[in-house]
Amino acid sequence: MSELDLQEFNVGIDLALEAKEYAEAAGNGPVPGVLSDVSEDDGITITRLEVTTEEGSRIMGKMIGHYVTFEVPELRKQDTVLQDRVATKLAQEFAEFLLRIGISKTANVLIVGLGNWNVTPDALGPIVVENALVTRHFFELMPNEVAPGYRNVSAVAPGVLGITGIESSDIVQGIVDRSKPDLIIAIDALASKALERVNTTIQIADTGIHPGSGIGNKRRGITKEILGVPVVAIGVPTVLYASTIVSNSIDLMRDHLKKHAAGKAEGFLGLLDSIDENERLQLVREALGPLGHDLLVTPKEIDQFIEDIANIVASGLNAALHEAVDKTNVAAYTH
Amino acid sequence: MSELDLQEFNVGIDLALEAKEYAEAAGNGPVPGVLSDVSEDDGITITRLEVTTEEGSRIMGKMIGHYVTFEVPELRKQDTVLQDRVATKLAQEFAEFLLRIGISKTANVLIVGLGNWNVTPDALGPIVVENALVTRHFFELMPNEVAPGYRNVSAVAPGVLGITGIESSDIVQGIVDRSKPDLIIAIDALASKALERVNTTIQIADTGIHPGSGIGNKRRGITKEILGVPVVAIGVPTVLYASTIVSNSIDLMRDHLKKHAAGKAEGFLGLLDSIDENERLQLVREALGPLGHDLLVTPKEIDQFIEDIANIVASGLNAALHEAVDKTNVAAYTH
Amino acid sequence: MSELDLQEFNVGIDLALEAKEYAEAAGNGPVPGVLSDVSEDDGITITRLEVTTEEGSRIMGKMIGHYVTFEVPELRKQDTVLQDRVATKLAQEFAEFLLRIGISKTANVLIVGLGNWNVTPDALGPIVVENALVTRHFFELMPNEVAPGYRNVSAVAPGVLGITGIESSDIVQGIVDRSKPDLIIAIDALASKALERVNTTIQIADTGIHPGSGIGNKRRGITKEILGVPVVAIGVPTVLYASTIVSNSIDLMRDHLKKHAAGKAEGFLGLLDSIDENERLQLVREALGPLGHDLLVTPKEIDQFIEDIANIVASGLNAALHEAVDKTNVAAYTH
Amino acid sequence: MSELDLQEFNVGIDLALEAKEYAEAAGNGPVPGVLSDVSEDDGITITRLEVTTEEGSRIMGKMIGHYVTFEVPELRKQDTVLQDRVATKLAQEFAEFLLRIGISKTANVLIVGLGNWNVTPDALGPIVVENALVTRHFFELMPNEVAPGYRNVSAVAPGVLGITGIESSDIVQGIVDRSKPDLIIAIDALASKALERVNTTIQIADTGIHPGSGIGNKRRGITKEILGVPVVAIGVPTVLYASTIVSNSIDLMRDHLKKHAAGKAEGFLGLLDSIDENERLQLVREALGPLGHDLLVTPKEIDQFIEDIANIVASGLNAALHEAVDKTNVAAYTH
Repeated sequence: MSELDLQEFNVGIDLALEAKEYAEAAGNGPVPGVLSDVSEDDGITITRLEVTTEEGSRIMGKMIGHYVTFEVPELRKQDTVLQDRVATKLAQEFAEFLLRIGISKTANVLIVGLGNWNVTPDALGPIVVENALVTRHFFELMPNEVAPGYRNVSAVAPGVLGITGIESSDIVQGIVDRSKPDLIIAIDALASKALERVNTTIQIADTGIHPGSGIGNKRRGITKEILGVPVVAIGVPTVLYASTIVSNSIDLMRDHLKKHAAGKAEGFLGLLDSIDENERLQLVREALGPLGHDLLVTPKEIDQFIEDIANIVASGLNAALHEAVDKTNVAAYTH
Repeated sequence: MSELDLQEFNVGIDLALEAKEYAEAAGNGPVPGVLSDVSEDDGITITRLEVTTEEGSRIMGKMIGHYVTFEVPELRKQDTVLQDRVATKLAQEFAEFLLRIGISKTANVLIVGLGNWNVTPDALGPIVVENALVTRHFFELMPNEVAPGYRNVSAVAPGVLGITGIESSDIVQGIVDRSKPDLIIAIDALASKALERVNTTIQIADTGIHPGSGIGNKRRGITKEILGVPVVAIGVPTVLYASTIVSNSIDLMRDHLKKHAAGKAEGFLGLLDSIDENERLQLVREALGPLGHDLLVTPKEIDQFIEDIANIVASGLNAALHEAVDKTNVAAYTH
Repeated sequence: MSELDLQEFNVGIDLALEAKEYAEAAGNGPVPGVLSDVSEDDGITITRLEVTTEEGSRIMGKMIGHYVTFEVPELRKQDTVLQDRVATKLAQEFAEFLLRIGISKTANVLIVGLGNWNVTPDALGPIVVENALVTRHFFELMPNEVAPGYRNVSAVAPGVLGITGIESSDIVQGIVDRSKPDLIIAIDALASKALERVNTTIQIADTGIHPGSGIGNKRRGITKEILGVPVVAIGVPTVLYASTIVSNSIDLMRDHLKKHAAGKAEGFLGLLDSIDENERLQLVREALGPLGHDLLVTPKEIDQFIEDIANIVASGLNAALHEAVDKTNVAAYTH
Repeated sequence: MSELDLQEFNVGIDLALEAKEYAEAAGNGPVPGVLSDVSEDDGITITRLEVTTEEGSRIMGKMIGHYVTFEVPELRKQDTVLQDRVATKLAQEFAEFLLRIGISKTANVLIVGLGNWNVTPDALGPIVVENALVTRHFFELMPNEVAPGYRNVSAVAPGVLGITGIESSDIVQGIVDRSKPDLIIAIDALASKALERVNTTIQIADTGIHPGSGIGNKRRGITKEILGVPVVAIGVPTVLYASTIVSNSIDLMRDHLKKHAAGKAEGFLGLLDSIDENERLQLVREALGPLGHDLLVTPKEIDQFIEDIANIVASGLNAALHEAVDKTNVAAYTH
């Protein structure tokens, strides 16, 4: 498969981690121009990726920039101790991330919670906004009385195009023009390629939010190029297409068959073994599409999952942004 | 009591109807510079007020402009037939109101739902936004394919200062700068002076929303002067102060005593008979305040009431703004 | 595959329609002892099944009894006109169903809404209960004043085992002992085998609810045998396993390949072509299971879907149970 | 006023504390047959009342039994540290209360959450049920594997008469007959006489729940006499009548006037000074009633208040009932 095809195909991959996996599988090895570093600590795997060259960007189908991914497979188990640990690690990692990309400790921040209140798997952004520790009004109204250790933070949930009739990007730009933040942190629900990543993964990226990514209607990007302000995106996959479940599962079945057939599984899946991932997904979509089978789906327990992970993100953000918030017990500051 | 005092006192009166009642009671008669017209139809009383002079404005403590009030005492009874009738009348009255103040039938409209999703009596604005029939994105993306009878409508819920850290007025101004509407319709929950008006009254006014009115934190107004675009406000009283319940009730008790005492009730309530309303409210506040008695309160059934009245307002707006929506059966277009 | 295996396998099939499809596929033809009648009217397909013999029951893996299924593929499109038509048809069909199984028009009814308020895809039962037209208290408190055309109806949502610590069946039995209904109508969310049936299908059955069916924890059944009162179950599939999406999709892929390969697709899917459905599902489960891939999933828009279909079921029930409710416009009686 | 009148009047007083205040005011001093003990600790006032004689019961209008009241005026300030302290104290006090009235540490408990999910100020009971730590199913299904320190607890929310058509008392009795608890703990929202007590007060009583108390429709009591099992009630006032705000405020105004008038305030309020509380409330009701002024009201912030206090009650209960729950950090066990 040509790199061009791959890039086109990757347009729909929200997680840099998954884009890298696909690119490596297709190219049989490491992608040039992509640095990566993985650390694991008691159930939390943190992957720091950097796409450094145009070539790497083209192959990955991802912008040049920094990407950090938290993978916590047990996060769906409603273990509050684990949730607190993730929030604490996220606070530390996020604070470092901002310094690494050159954001000062006193930069004014606007948190933008993308998505729709009334669609549970798409409500991540609005729930984070609701739990963010905002201070801008205190800086505006009584600047001399703000306690040390707090920075100027504001937060908005602009809504989705189908409800407002206005592109989120336009709403955010209007608010940026009026409130003049130094940095935007955009929170968004993503689509994943793999069911086990849904509601267990958090991605941080300094590349903003681009048309076509995310699960909503966001044709115009939320990026530094458009808004004139750096944009860090925090995304959590909360949905995936039925077709990607199927395509992904075929890989797992092949691996499973190989393992149990002592290497003699070559061709076990016939045509499915001989075509590449892209073609396979295409095939699955053609088979499912006409019948209403290819919906975006989400786990049955999404109400609880979204609340848990939104609290982790909000707690992590509050502690990362305000030095006064105790970074060893971050959860106390949200409900 | 001097007019100056009255004006100061009236700052807190959200309903023009109540401001007029107070001014008339204090001044023993009609207020100069205020025109008024009342019509009643099967349980729906519509009062059209116009404050035409500076003097009238000063005495009323209300801006020069047009005010229309719907009073529907039975609206808390969950009678869906009555609700449909009110929505239908509201659609007709609102369409006429826009023409009367010179807004064209094709003017682009931005609906602004003020208030807080998570505080039920303050959620009127966001719920109306959710049920508004928005079309702006169709006009932007495929202008030639929009069916006749629809105008360009968008809708946002900017949130409240305590959640966003940014004044609603600033957020709206940013959005107006980007989306260029010809008219803003701002929806807000109000405070009333009388419990029987709570969730039974709808006010339309072409004066915008001024600092100090409403129940939220809105120091900067949402007005034509500030935003450069005409602003029509639709308000529904959903809360009132405990102290105004008490002060108001003392009047009712006096009336009740007079009626049953054949005119001999003069002085029945001692001091409470000899002081005027303003002083009485002051006294009640002093008595209640320190002990946490003077809360804003709302009827116990507020969840249902707010949903019902938000649907009426949204249905009425949708039919008033889009000619294609059947004005004889407006409720079919919202949930 | 032996019938015994099939029965075992079918334990997890909630829809009689799907059980029949599987049995026919496995047995290469009609199942003995199963009568079936299908009618279609403008997008609503109604299938009336009757399992008449022990043999049919054994092969199908379904109890002897009557099953009616509504299939409305367009039901996820939020078309209120279609929703009203489905509710109206459901009312008529349900009223006939009760007569067919010998329930009198004046039988006292207890509606039991199984499931969990706080898990959206499992909230069907509680939402139907909330919108049911209950009258039992009027019959108890002022029996002579109940208007004609209403029968004695009560409704409870017993909760789920994880919240209450008590089997739903035990709670229902306690309530039945006290309130003495003549008939129980149990509403429950189901799992489907096919994504296109999720939130588009309604099943009525006079066999009650059996251990192992449904998506909750209901080890003890809600059946006439246990409760001493006839039980009609109304179920709507709202979730499905990732593994069944995969297994089902392989069929669709095979059909798709055959169609495009002019009959030469034999063996295209290798092993997947040579094993039967049961083995294939087993294989998929083994592949997905260990990695947290095999979750119960639901469409992203579940919040809206569940509200829409719960309103259809409640409207249909209200009109079917009370003659006084206009069966040509059933939706007016619920929100 | 005769004791008989007082008793009749007191039927509507949910809080024993308020009944005592009224009885003392009416009788000019301590009520015979009522023991009382008050302790205060850093903003939490605990009053332990015991009505020991028929005479005390008649005068108070309250059943013979034990009453404990927590008053925490600052509880509406969303101070999570205070909330944790109240939950911890409640756990200790409640554990002692159960021992004092002779309930063993291993008694099986059924928690009954009265009230209505969909009416925020009435949702206390259902929310507590949702957060209760239930274990009965573990004792039933695998009795040998339950960790030490847990007792057998179950929990149900029976709904309200208007939704179910069945008296809550009947539903509870059916469930008691089936699940055989040793003790019922019934949670209910109450009405208060004083706005400052709303959402700041928690009452524990071993007298059960009697017809006419509470704000719902509960004609048949939930008591030991009816159910055959001891019933401890936990109540929180979440609403009050507009008329009681007015009547109560007149007292405060009189006190306020006296304080500022150097004792010369006698007769300041005319008739209102000369009639007793009962007659005054009667007068206020007559004045307010016909106009829809006498609604049950609740503070504007009820959504947050009810969530906070329900979490306190659930946390306190969980720690009181299960020895294994850490009584020094009780909040960790609920969301």
